[in-house]
Amino acid sequence: MNKIITLAVAAALAMTGASAQELQNFRGNVRVVSPELTDSDVTFRLKADYATMVQLQASWLAQPVAMTRGENNVWAVTLELPYAEIHTYNFIVDGTAVNDPQNFYVQRDGTRYLTMLTVPGERTANYGEAQHRGTVSYKWYDSKILGINRRVTVYTPYGYEKNPKAKYPVLYLLHGAGGDEEAWSSMGRAAQILDNLIEKGLAKPMIVVMPNGNPGQQAAQTLGLPQSDINFRDPAYADAYVKSLCTEIVPFIEKEYRADAKPASRAIAGLSMGGGHTVTAVSLYPSLFDWICPLSSAGSLTNEAAQALKKDGYKLFWLACGDTDFILNNSNAIDKVLTDNGLEHTYYHSDGGHVWANWRLYLNTFAQLLFK
Amino acid sequence: MNKIITLAVAAALAMTGASAQELQNFRGNVRVVSPELTDSDVTFRLKADYATMVQLQASWLAQPVAMTRGENNVWAVTLELPYAEIHTYNFIVDGTAVNDPQNFYVQRDGTRYLTMLTVPGERTANYGEAQHRGTVSYKWYDSKILGINRRVTVYTPYGYEKNPKAKYPVLYLLHGAGGDEEAWSSMGRAAQILDNLIEKGLAKPMIVVMPNGNPGQQAAQTLGLPQSDINFRDPAYADAYVKSLCTEIVPFIEKEYRADAKPASRAIAGLSMGGGHTVTAVSLYPSLFDWICPLSSAGSLTNEAAQALKKDGYKLFWLACGDTDFILNNSNAIDKVLTDNGLEHTYYHSDGGHVWANWRLYLNTFAQLLFK
Repeated sequence: MNKIITLAVAAALAMTGASAQELQNFRGNVRVVSPELTDSDVTFRLKADYATMVQLQASWLAQPVAMTRGENNVWAVTLELPYAEIHTYNFIVDGTAVNDPQNFYVQRDGTRYLTMLTVPGERTANYGEAQHRGTVSYKWYDSKILGINRRVTVYTPYGYEKNPKAKYPVLYLLHGAGGDEEAWSSMGRAAQILDNLIEKGLAKPMIVVMPNGNPGQQAAQTLGLPQSDINFRDPAYADAYVKSLCTEIVPFIEKEYRADAKPASRAIAGLSMGGGHTVTAVSLYPSLFDWICPLSSAGSLTNEAAQALKKDGYKLFWLACGDTDFILNNSNAIDKVLTDNGLEHTYYHSDGGHVWANWRLYLNTFAQLLFK
Repeated sequence: MNKIITLAVAAALAMTGASAQELQNFRGNVRVVSPELTDSDVTFRLKADYATMVQLQASWLAQPVAMTRGENNVWAVTLELPYAEIHTYNFIVDGTAVNDPQNFYVQRDGTRYLTMLTVPGERTANYGEAQHRGTVSYKWYDSKILGINRRVTVYTPYGYEKNPKAKYPVLYLLHGAGGDEEAWSSMGRAAQILDNLIEKGLAKPMIVVMPNGNPGQQAAQTLGLPQSDINFRDPAYADAYVKSLCTEIVPFIEKEYRADAKPASRAIAGLSMGGGHTVTAVSLYPSLFDWICPLSSAGSLTNEAAQALKKDGYKLFWLACGDTDFILNNSNAIDKVLTDNGLEHTYYHSDGGHVWANWRLYLNTFAQLLFK
């Protein structure tokens, strides 16, 4: 082993000078294209001069695949094109994960930055930029309930500014555990999906409000703001976030924006933990929202809450879950309570599990039903 | 060499299974803290099980420094704390650049994502989040001059919504080559600097408009929108972006926002290429802006333009450049034209070169002078 280590160190020392150059020029001297798509396959490439092994790890692959060193130490692998969706991938260079330096399409998932691969197709037609685009704003509201100033992402549709007297319905769109107020606009492509649906006449122009569902957070962790020091597990703070959503965020939005402030113009949808928040919100405030969409949902609906909702009335209860989602039983339980209590609803099934591919599909589907 | 390669391949094969696990748990089994700051030093760490050599590359270091493998294959290096500023760094794992997976503070510089190290101090006091924060919005405007729909980042100060009759002065803040409409809000910390200065009573509440200065771009490349097919080197399109800025963006902003639409309430500042845009804007439209701040500026000012500006009047001409900036001669030339033509102005000098540390410092300095 000694000899190998010595040689490795010698090689390492030899490259010390080269490495600074390496980074500065890492898209420079040798033109590397990655990813490169054809109609049937995709090639990934990474220039890695001193690596022993380079692999590709990707969201649609069960395990990493080896890449092969080629000319100029460009490692490559060609794979059959996966199904049309937004996938993510990275390289593993001698055991360390590396994003593709050639690919600047990046999503943030909590505290991780993921390189995207968008495979075009019918399924992704609404995930790119439309011709006419709405405004995405990052606003701050004061929460007395949570004791902090908090950030909320707000989408206003194209034409909002040009129609100064128009009032708009509002969709409150909630993220899951590990997410934040940028989850739906980054991984969820919410602005792009709404822009495209509205442009095609498939969805009503609407405001979309994407709050931060972590009660102790002022904003996404990437902003570096201190967390609240309240213990939200204290029963005194039960459902504190949902209470803030319904009694602070909704009034804030209806004051700041030209929102149509009535139940028939309020929708609530959320994924996973946000599905739980959705169910809790309509349980605690049955007359607030007429359009209700828990997606791959956590949380549970009691018979009492279902009866209250039935009595109060609503326009749409649209439940969705993937067939292989680990949390499928939870959606089945909500479906059962709705059925047992005679509440009209849709239970939308898709392939796959607890993934953004499904949540983008759900938004693209139920947004076409809202406010009609 | 054969023996080494064989052994390396064997090691590589052995780790294939482990590597998928590696990524999933790469912040998991072994708790790695990076960066870790004390009052005097900073330690960087990376878990890299199969690497031969790991180095640290950082914006304040002339060349990469070696890291040492420790327990659990966590590589580390401790360095004296650099001066208070926002720095950037990454690791080089067997020759390949890797961002710090433990550190989710990331800036985007064009098409690159850079891990940040913020060293706290007087200089960075205004770069973090203030108690009261304004809204950052991404809006779209139609440019007839450039033939495309384009994105612009707009900051409105805290209190804008609560004072529905107040009118605000506007700073047009322009980026340099390689930048886009997110450069000032990401690397430049523009929203944080303004929030802090306004909160401390050091700057007037103002709207800040950060357009995209690349005439063929609809938006940052990360949005994936097609470029314009116009050839902007055609003399027919000379200064097309500056014309769009002054005759399309300014009216758009003054229609969409409660802007105080007069020269005394309009400021223009820009760095490098954006300094050139600033000088061109006040040369073509001498009566539009009363507050003029070219930073590390490209572009040139003619004697005729200086005379027109002098005749028309202005409130502030604030030129700034770093002492070791490669483009210092250009600022010196603008200074000379101003002096030769008897235009009152400030020439602010700082240490250092053509870097964001200087542009943050300049914004933090001249924003305190505007509209007073």
